[in-house]
Amino acid sequence: MPLLDLTASAADITRAICDIPSVSGDEAALADAVVAALSEYDHLEIIRDGDTIVARTSLGRDRRVIIAGHLDTVPINNNLPSELREIDGESVIWGRGTVDMKAGVAVQLKLAVDLVAPMVDITWIWYDHEEVDSSLNGLGRLAGNQPDLMAGDFAILGEPTAGEIEGGCNGTLRAVVRTHGVRAHSARAWVGENAIHAAAPVLARLSEYRPKEVTVEGLAYREGLNAVRIGGGVAGNVIPDLCEVEVNYRYAPDKSPEQAVAHIRNVFAGFEIEIVDLSAGARPGLDAELAQEFLAATGARPKPKYGWTDVARFSALGVPAVNYGPGDPSLAHHDQERVPVAQIETVEAGLRAWLS
Amino acid sequence: MPLLDLTASAADITRAICDIPSVSGDEAALADAVVAALSEYDHLEIIRDGDTIVARTSLGRDRRVIIAGHLDTVPINNNLPSELREIDGESVIWGRGTVDMKAGVAVQLKLAVDLVAPMVDITWIWYDHEEVDSSLNGLGRLAGNQPDLMAGDFAILGEPTAGEIEGGCNGTLRAVVRTHGVRAHSARAWVGENAIHAAAPVLARLSEYRPKEVTVEGLAYREGLNAVRIGGGVAGNVIPDLCEVEVNYRYAPDKSPEQAVAHIRNVFAGFEIEIVDLSAGARPGLDAELAQEFLAATGARPKPKYGWTDVARFSALGVPAVNYGPGDPSLAHHDQERVPVAQIETVEAGLRAWLS
Repeated sequence: MPLLDLTASAADITRAICDIPSVSGDEAALADAVVAALSEYDHLEIIRDGDTIVARTSLGRDRRVIIAGHLDTVPINNNLPSELREIDGESVIWGRGTVDMKAGVAVQLKLAVDLVAPMVDITWIWYDHEEVDSSLNGLGRLAGNQPDLMAGDFAILGEPTAGEIEGGCNGTLRAVVRTHGVRAHSARAWVGENAIHAAAPVLARLSEYRPKEVTVEGLAYREGLNAVRIGGGVAGNVIPDLCEVEVNYRYAPDKSPEQAVAHIRNVFAGFEIEIVDLSAGARPGLDAELAQEFLAATGARPKPKYGWTDVARFSALGVPAVNYGPGDPSLAHHDQERVPVAQIETVEAGLRAWLS
Repeated sequence: MPLLDLTASAADITRAICDIPSVSGDEAALADAVVAALSEYDHLEIIRDGDTIVARTSLGRDRRVIIAGHLDTVPINNNLPSELREIDGESVIWGRGTVDMKAGVAVQLKLAVDLVAPMVDITWIWYDHEEVDSSLNGLGRLAGNQPDLMAGDFAILGEPTAGEIEGGCNGTLRAVVRTHGVRAHSARAWVGENAIHAAAPVLARLSEYRPKEVTVEGLAYREGLNAVRIGGGVAGNVIPDLCEVEVNYRYAPDKSPEQAVAHIRNVFAGFEIEIVDLSAGARPGLDAELAQEFLAATGARPKPKYGWTDVARFSALGVPAVNYGPGDPSLAHHDQERVPVAQIETVEAGLRAWLS
């Protein structure tokens, strides 16, 4: 098993955990390494649920903060092992997971072992399966198996925010839009019906769609509607009888999941639609007392979070939650994913200042 | 190994060989059964090349006719085992392969063992891999390995023609049309570029395309342009960076393969195009002496062949060739593929009358 040295800098820990690949479903090696590294520290109680790890202080403080991050990444695309690069005079760590979200996890791991006596009790959570279907999400599984471990007064998720504080999140919906046809030999196409040709209006509606920007509690949420998968075809000489277009709708937190479904049914009116994934967004939640203290201590500027994040799970449990982590979220899942070393240090300093 | 009784009726042989599945690449069991059944007859010399079987008479006749059919089928789609059905008062054999082209093969197998002293020497050929990429085609392989086995004065391919005589064939081209984009997290789609959305004009051009009808040597050839496969997508939350649309163009025999390629490059101008399969068509060839005798003996009406068939391979070797077989070609590859028993009997009688 690779050894993790949590006394190293957060930047070095970032590289070390990026170089243990952990594409969703394959987090065990990284989770093992994290548990092994943490087990040397007596001030933390460690609980493991699958590849989700909980580490808690029990100092009898009157408030408890949850600080969480996911261990998994989207698939690697020729962008590992990590590299330390100099771009426009700035040191960056390049590679899959640097932004989403191993730099954030590295800061958390370092502070978890450093902060022996924080001003609040802390529950650290590192979890699996964030980048895939929400039914597999490790935090969701933990909420079902051991909900007491997720109790607290405030939660911070280390998703990339470029060192700003991002409130709430967009909701997300995935749907499969299907067209049907009739198979026939492609030499006599006129006796069949081509299901791929029938999907032409689906792609036309997607390419013509103009996403909205919606203001919620003073923060402007940008929406999006995209095809994420398309498939169809039987053989090179057969008119295809089925075409499937999977779309992902990211919707502002002014809408309920039901309203999001209604919108998609409207956009693709006339087509067969199956909703395959649906998660509510979260309102910003920056009016909570600990959120206000946290904003003041870090001096960071509140912004909207575009991506769906697990703040919505805390929000649903009644725990106000924000996103705060290093990395430009525009580079999440990008082939050129990379995080400035300075941002890792800023986020580490911000959290340390507030928690000490 | 299943036993084939070639003294049964052609209809019964049709059912027997349909019930030995032989999707392209999986023809060995059927080829084994055919070789075993033929090996009991002394008037035939048997040669095997992979799953292609050649059976020849050597009677010293001054003319030789080649009669050929393929053993493979497109994938099964809940349409095996075969069934004998009564539809609108007509007996039909229903199931995968009945039309394309095991009824034709059954007639050939029966006549191969019955016609001990035909009026011409006959080379019977049953071959593999007709329904897939032309580079795998068993007849093409035989032409390369043992071209002397394909020498002759006239060739008849048992492809389905509903008992008519179909001259020549359309050419066929397959191409992959590709669109590219830039991956990004689907929550921030605006920093990526969606390759599936970029394929909207490709599907629009396909669905708006109006195929031509072209008259060649008095026969009207109907063309077609169809998507046969589409694929794209990385994960449910990633903007896809690649989309591929595979198209199949069936073109009249007035065009060369080069002209067909130029047409496709014109239709999809502005897109990346890769030609993945290209086969010339064949002109009707009904002016050959044996073709005229055959037309007269059967009394059948000459028509154009829409689908590409291996008559083009004989045509390229200088052997005039026509298609003649039972089964409505509109039902080839169809889920409701079925052949009338009466048509099997008509084709058997036509060939027997001419060859005896």
